[in-house]
Amino acid sequence: METNAIFPKGDKLTNGYFTGDAFLKVLLARDKNSDFLLGNVTFEPGGRTNWHTHPKGQVLIVIEGEGFYQEKGKPAQVIKKGDVINIPENTEHWHGASARTEMTHIAITHFKDDVNVVWLHPVSEQEYEEVNKP
Amino acid sequence: METNAIFPKGDKLTNGYFTGDAFLKVLLARDKNSDFLLGNVTFEPGGRTNWHTHPKGQVLIVIEGEGFYQEKGKPAQVIKKGDVINIPENTEHWHGASARTEMTHIAITHFKDDVNVVWLHPVSEQEYEEVNKP
Repeated sequence: METNAIFPKGDKLTNGYFTGDAFLKVLLARDKNSDFLLGNVTFEPGGRTNWHTHPKGQVLIVIEGEGFYQEKGKPAQVIKKGDVINIPENTEHWHGASARTEMTHIAITHFKDDVNVVWLHPVSEQEYEEVNKP
Repeated sequence: METNAIFPKGDKLTNGYFTGDAFLKVLLARDKNSDFLLGNVTFEPGGRTNWHTHPKGQVLIVIEGEGFYQEKGKPAQVIKKGDVINIPENTEHWHGASARTEMTHIAITHFKDDVNVVWLHPVSEQEYEEVNKP
Protein backbone atom coordinates (compact mmCIF):
# COMPACT_ATOMS: atom_id res chain seq x y z
CA MET A 1 0.00 0.00 0.00
CA GLU A 2 1.11 3.54 -0.64
CA THR A 3 2.26 5.06 2.62
CA ASN A 4 0.34 8.22 1.77
CA ALA A 5 -2.96 6.55 0.83
CA ILE A 6 -6.07 8.09 2.41
CA PHE A 7 -7.97 4.80 2.87
CA PRO A 8 -7.00 1.17 3.33
CA LYS A 9 -7.00 -0.59 -0.05
CA GLY A 10 -9.81 -2.92 1.01
CA ASP A 11 -10.68 -6.20 -0.69
CA LYS A 12 -9.74 -7.37 -4.16
CA LEU A 13 -12.78 -7.42 -6.42
CA THR A 14 -13.37 -10.98 -7.54
CA ASN A 15 -16.98 -10.72 -8.73
CA GLY A 16 -16.03 -11.25 -12.40
CA TYR A 17 -17.00 -7.73 -13.47
CA PHE A 18 -13.45 -6.34 -13.48
CA THR A 19 -10.39 -7.03 -15.62
CA GLY A 20 -7.01 -6.94 -13.89
CA ASP A 21 -6.63 -5.91 -10.26
CA ALA A 22 -9.12 -3.62 -8.54
CA PHE A 23 -9.83 -3.22 -4.83
CA LEU A 24 -12.89 -1.94 -2.97
CA LYS A 25 -13.04 -0.33 0.45
CA VAL A 26 -16.65 0.37 1.45
CA LEU A 27 -16.79 3.73 3.23
CA LEU A 28 -20.50 3.91 4.04
CA ALA A 29 -23.47 1.60 3.49
CA ARG A 30 -26.80 2.84 2.14
CA ASP A 31 -29.03 4.24 4.88
CA LYS A 32 -32.19 6.32 5.25
CA ASN A 33 -30.39 9.60 4.48
CA SER A 34 -27.78 8.41 1.97
CA ASP A 35 -29.48 6.52 -0.85
CA PHE A 36 -26.18 5.32 -2.29
CA LEU A 37 -23.19 3.11 -1.64
CA LEU A 38 -20.08 5.12 -0.81
CA GLY A 39 -16.84 3.33 -1.60
CA ASN A 40 -13.22 3.80 -2.59
CA VAL A 41 -11.90 1.82 -5.57
CA THR A 42 -8.21 1.36 -6.36
CA PHE A 43 -7.29 0.17 -9.87
CA GLU A 44 -3.81 -1.18 -10.44
CA PRO A 45 -2.29 -0.47 -13.90
CA GLY A 46 -4.37 -2.39 -16.44
CA GLY A 47 -7.30 -2.72 -14.02
CA ARG A 48 -10.75 -1.61 -15.21
CA THR A 49 -14.45 -2.24 -14.82
CA ASN A 50 -16.59 -4.10 -17.33
CA TRP A 51 -18.89 -1.96 -19.41
CA HIS A 52 -21.88 -1.17 -17.18
CA THR A 53 -24.74 1.23 -16.43
CA HIS A 54 -26.16 2.80 -13.27
CA PRO A 55 -29.97 3.21 -13.12
CA LYS A 56 -29.64 6.45 -11.13
CA GLY A 57 -26.11 7.51 -12.08
CA GLN A 58 -22.83 7.64 -10.16
CA VAL A 59 -20.37 10.32 -9.06
CA LEU A 60 -16.63 9.56 -9.19
CA ILE A 61 -14.08 11.64 -7.28
CA VAL A 62 -10.54 10.80 -8.41
CA ILE A 63 -8.18 11.09 -5.43
CA GLU A 64 -4.99 9.53 -6.82
CA GLY A 65 -3.34 8.66 -10.11
CA GLU A 66 -4.64 8.75 -13.65
CA GLY A 67 -6.87 6.59 -15.80
CA PHE A 68 -9.81 6.60 -18.19
CA TYR A 69 -13.57 7.13 -18.31
CA GLN A 70 -15.34 6.18 -21.52
CA GLU A 71 -18.99 6.29 -22.57
CA LYS A 72 -20.07 3.91 -25.34
CA GLY A 73 -19.54 5.43 -28.78
CA LYS A 74 -17.44 8.32 -27.48
CA PRO A 75 -13.68 8.82 -27.15
CA ALA A 76 -12.20 7.89 -23.76
CA GLN A 77 -11.47 10.78 -21.40
CA VAL A 78 -8.30 10.90 -19.33
CA ILE A 79 -9.29 11.33 -15.67
CA LYS A 80 -6.85 12.24 -12.93
CA LYS A 81 -6.50 13.25 -9.28
CA GLY A 82 -8.95 16.05 -8.45
CA ASP A 83 -11.42 15.29 -11.25
CA VAL A 84 -15.12 14.77 -10.49
CA ILE A 85 -17.14 12.77 -13.04
CA ASN A 86 -20.94 12.92 -12.92
CA ILE A 87 -22.10 9.80 -14.75
CA PRO A 88 -25.69 9.99 -16.07
CA GLU A 89 -28.27 7.28 -15.46
CA ASN A 90 -28.57 4.37 -17.92
CA THR A 91 -25.41 5.31 -19.81
CA GLU A 92 -23.10 2.49 -20.86
CA HIS A 93 -19.52 3.23 -19.78
CA TRP A 94 -16.39 1.92 -18.11
CA HIS A 95 -13.61 3.37 -15.95
CA GLY A 96 -10.26 2.24 -14.75
CA ALA A 97 -6.52 2.73 -14.59
CA SER A 98 -4.34 3.23 -17.64
CA ALA A 99 -2.00 0.46 -18.74
CA ARG A 100 0.89 2.20 -16.98
CA THR A 101 -0.62 4.15 -14.05
CA GLU A 102 -2.81 3.29 -11.10
CA MET A 103 -5.99 5.26 -10.43
CA THR A 104 -8.04 5.59 -7.23
CA HIS A 105 -11.50 7.11 -6.98
CA ILE A 106 -14.23 7.53 -4.42
CA ALA A 107 -17.57 6.41 -5.90
CA ILE A 108 -21.05 7.59 -4.87
CA THR A 109 -23.30 5.01 -6.51
CA HIS A 110 -26.98 5.93 -6.36
CA PHE A 111 -29.72 3.36 -5.94
CA LYS A 112 -32.90 3.22 -7.96
CA ASP A 113 -35.16 0.89 -6.00
CA ASP A 114 -32.60 -1.71 -4.92
CA VAL A 115 -30.28 -1.62 -7.93
CA ASN A 116 -27.21 0.59 -8.30
CA VAL A 117 -25.34 -1.10 -11.16
CA VAL A 118 -26.10 -3.29 -14.19
CA TRP A 119 -23.02 -5.17 -15.37
CA LEU A 120 -22.33 -5.86 -19.04
CA HIS A 121 -19.43 -7.40 -21.00
CA PRO A 122 -15.70 -6.82 -20.35
CA VAL A 123 -13.71 -4.03 -22.00
CA SER A 124 -11.80 -6.06 -24.58
CA GLU A 125 -8.01 -6.01 -24.89
CA GLN A 126 -8.47 -4.33 -28.28
CA GLU A 127 -10.72 -1.60 -26.85
CA TYR A 128 -8.32 -1.04 -23.97
CA GLU A 129 -5.20 -0.93 -26.17
CA GLU A 130 -6.96 1.61 -28.38
CA VAL A 131 -7.50 4.11 -25.53
CA ASN A 132 -3.96 3.56 -24.23
CA LYS A 133 -2.32 4.51 -27.54
CA PRO A 134 -0.07 7.53 -27.10
CA MET B 1 -1.71 25.75 -1.40
CA GLU B 2 -0.24 22.38 -0.55
CA THR B 3 1.54 20.99 -3.56
CA ASN B 4 -0.01 17.61 -2.89
CA ALA B 5 -3.60 18.80 -2.40
CA ILE B 6 -6.25 16.87 -4.33
CA PHE B 7 -8.50 19.86 -5.03
CA PRO B 8 -7.97 23.60 -5.41
CA LYS B 9 -8.61 25.31 -2.07
CA GLY B 10 -11.56 27.28 -3.47
CA ASP B 11 -13.05 30.39 -1.91
CA LYS B 12 -12.70 31.65 1.64
CA LEU B 13 -15.97 31.26 3.52
CA THR B 14 -17.14 34.72 4.53
CA ASN B 15 -20.80 33.96 5.30
CA GLY B 16 -20.40 34.58 9.04
CA TYR B 17 -21.01 30.94 10.00
CA PHE B 18 -17.34 30.03 10.46
CA THR B 19 -14.67 31.11 12.96
CA GLY B 20 -11.12 31.49 11.64
CA ASP B 21 -10.18 30.55 8.10
CA ALA B 22 -12.12 27.97 6.09
CA PHE B 23 -12.32 27.51 2.32
CA LEU B 24 -14.92 25.85 0.11
CA LYS B 25 -14.45 24.27 -3.28
CA VAL B 26 -17.79 23.11 -4.70
CA LEU B 27 -17.27 19.78 -6.46
CA LEU B 28 -20.79 19.12 -7.71
CA ALA B 29 -24.08 21.00 -7.56
CA ARG B 30 -27.34 19.33 -6.60
CA ASP B 31 -29.02 17.66 -9.58
CA LYS B 32 -31.81 15.18 -10.32
CA ASN B 33 -29.71 12.16 -9.31
CA SER B 34 -27.61 13.67 -6.51
CA ASP B 35 -29.87 15.29 -3.93
CA PHE B 36 -26.96 16.90 -2.12
CA LEU B 37 -24.24 19.50 -2.41
CA LEU B 38 -20.81 17.92 -2.85
CA GLY B 39 -17.95 20.12 -1.68
CA ASN B 40 -14.45 20.13 -0.25
CA VAL B 41 -13.78 22.22 2.84
CA THR B 42 -10.30 23.17 4.08
CA PHE B 43 -9.98 24.43 7.66
CA GLU B 44 -6.80 26.24 8.64
CA PRO B 45 -5.64 25.70 12.26
CA GLY B 46 -8.26 27.31 14.53
CA GLY B 47 -10.88 27.26 11.76
CA ARG B 48 -14.27 25.70 12.54
CA THR B 49 -17.95 25.84 11.69
CA ASN B 50 -20.61 27.37 13.90
CA TRP B 51 -22.83 24.92 15.72
CA HIS B 52 -25.39 23.77 13.15
CA THR B 53 -27.79 21.03 12.07
CA HIS B 54 -28.62 19.31 8.78
CA PRO B 55 -32.28 18.42 8.16
CA LYS B 56 -31.28 15.25 6.25
CA GLY B 57 -27.79 14.68 7.63
CA GLN B 58 -24.32 14.98 6.13
CA VAL B 59 -21.40 12.66 5.35
CA LEU B 60 -17.85 13.91 5.92
CA ILE B 61 -14.82 12.20 4.36
CA VAL B 62 -11.59 13.48 5.90
CA ILE B 63 -8.87 13.54 3.23
CA GLU B 64 -6.11 15.50 4.99
CA GLY B 65 -4.99 16.55 8.45
CA GLU B 66 -6.70 16.25 11.79
CA GLY B 67 -9.44 18.08 13.65
CA PHE B 68 -12.62 17.66 15.66
CA TYR B 69 -16.26 16.64 15.33
CA GLN B 70 -18.52 17.31 18.29
CA GLU B 71 -22.21 16.72 18.90
CA LYS B 72 -23.93 18.91 21.50
CA GLY B 73 -23.64 17.45 24.99
CA LYS B 74 -21.02 14.85 23.99
CA PRO B 75 -17.20 14.87 24.11
CA ALA B 76 -15.47 16.02 20.93
CA GLN B 77 -14.07 13.26 18.68
CA VAL B 78 -10.69 13.58 17.01
CA ILE B 79 -11.18 13.06 13.26
CA LYS B 80 -8.31 12.51 10.84
CA LYS B 81 -7.40 11.60 7.26
CA GLY B 82 -9.33 8.51 6.17
CA ASP B 83 -12.21 8.91 8.64
CA VAL B 84 -15.82 8.94 7.45
CA ILE B 85 -18.39 10.64 9.72
CA ASN B 86 -22.09 9.98 9.14
CA ILE B 87 -23.86 12.91 10.80
CA PRO B 88 -27.52 12.22 11.66
CA GLU B 89 -30.35 14.57 10.74
CA ASN B 90 -31.33 17.39 13.11
CA THR B 91 -28.33 16.87 15.37
CA GLU B 92 -26.56 19.95 16.69
CA HIS B 93 -22.80 19.71 16.07
CA TRP B 94 -19.69 21.45 14.76
CA HIS B 95 -16.51 20.38 12.95
CA GLY B 96 -13.21 21.96 12.14
CA ALA B 97 -9.45 21.97 12.46
CA SER B 98 -7.62 21.74 15.76
CA ALA B 99 -5.82 24.78 17.11
CA ARG B 100 -2.52 23.45 15.73
CA THR B 101 -3.40 21.35 12.65
CA GLU B 102 -5.31 21.93 9.44
CA MET B 103 -8.10 19.57 8.41
CA THR B 104 -9.68 19.00 4.99
CA HIS B 105 -12.86 17.04 4.34
CA ILE B 106 -15.17 16.28 1.46
CA ALA B 107 -18.79 16.93 2.51
CA ILE B 108 -21.93 15.32 1.09
CA THR B 109 -24.68 17.57 2.43
CA HIS B 110 -28.16 16.17 1.83
CA PHE B 111 -31.14 18.35 1.07
CA LYS B 112 -34.56 18.06 2.69
CA ASP B 113 -36.82 20.08 0.45
CA ASP B 114 -34.52 23.00 -0.34
CA VAL B 115 -32.60 23.20 2.95
CA ASN B 116 -29.34 21.41 3.70
CA VAL B 117 -28.06 23.30 6.75
CA VAL B 118 -29.46 25.34 9.65
CA TRP B 119 -26.82 27.60 11.18
CA LEU B 120 -26.68 28.36 14.91
CA HIS B 121 -24.27 30.22 17.20
CA PRO B 122 -20.45 30.15 17.00
CA VAL B 123 -18.32 27.64 18.91
CA SER B 124 -17.02 29.88 21.69
CA GLU B 125 -13.32 30.32 22.44
CA GLN B 126 -13.96 28.57 25.77
CA GLU B 127 -15.64 25.58 24.10
CA TYR B 128 -12.85 25.38 21.52
CA GLU B 129 -10.06 25.65 24.09
CA GLU B 130 -11.70 22.88 26.09
CA VAL B 131 -11.56 20.36 23.22
CA ASN B 132 -7.99 21.40 22.34
CA LYS B 133 -6.66 20.66 25.82
CA PRO B 134 -3.95 17.98 25.69
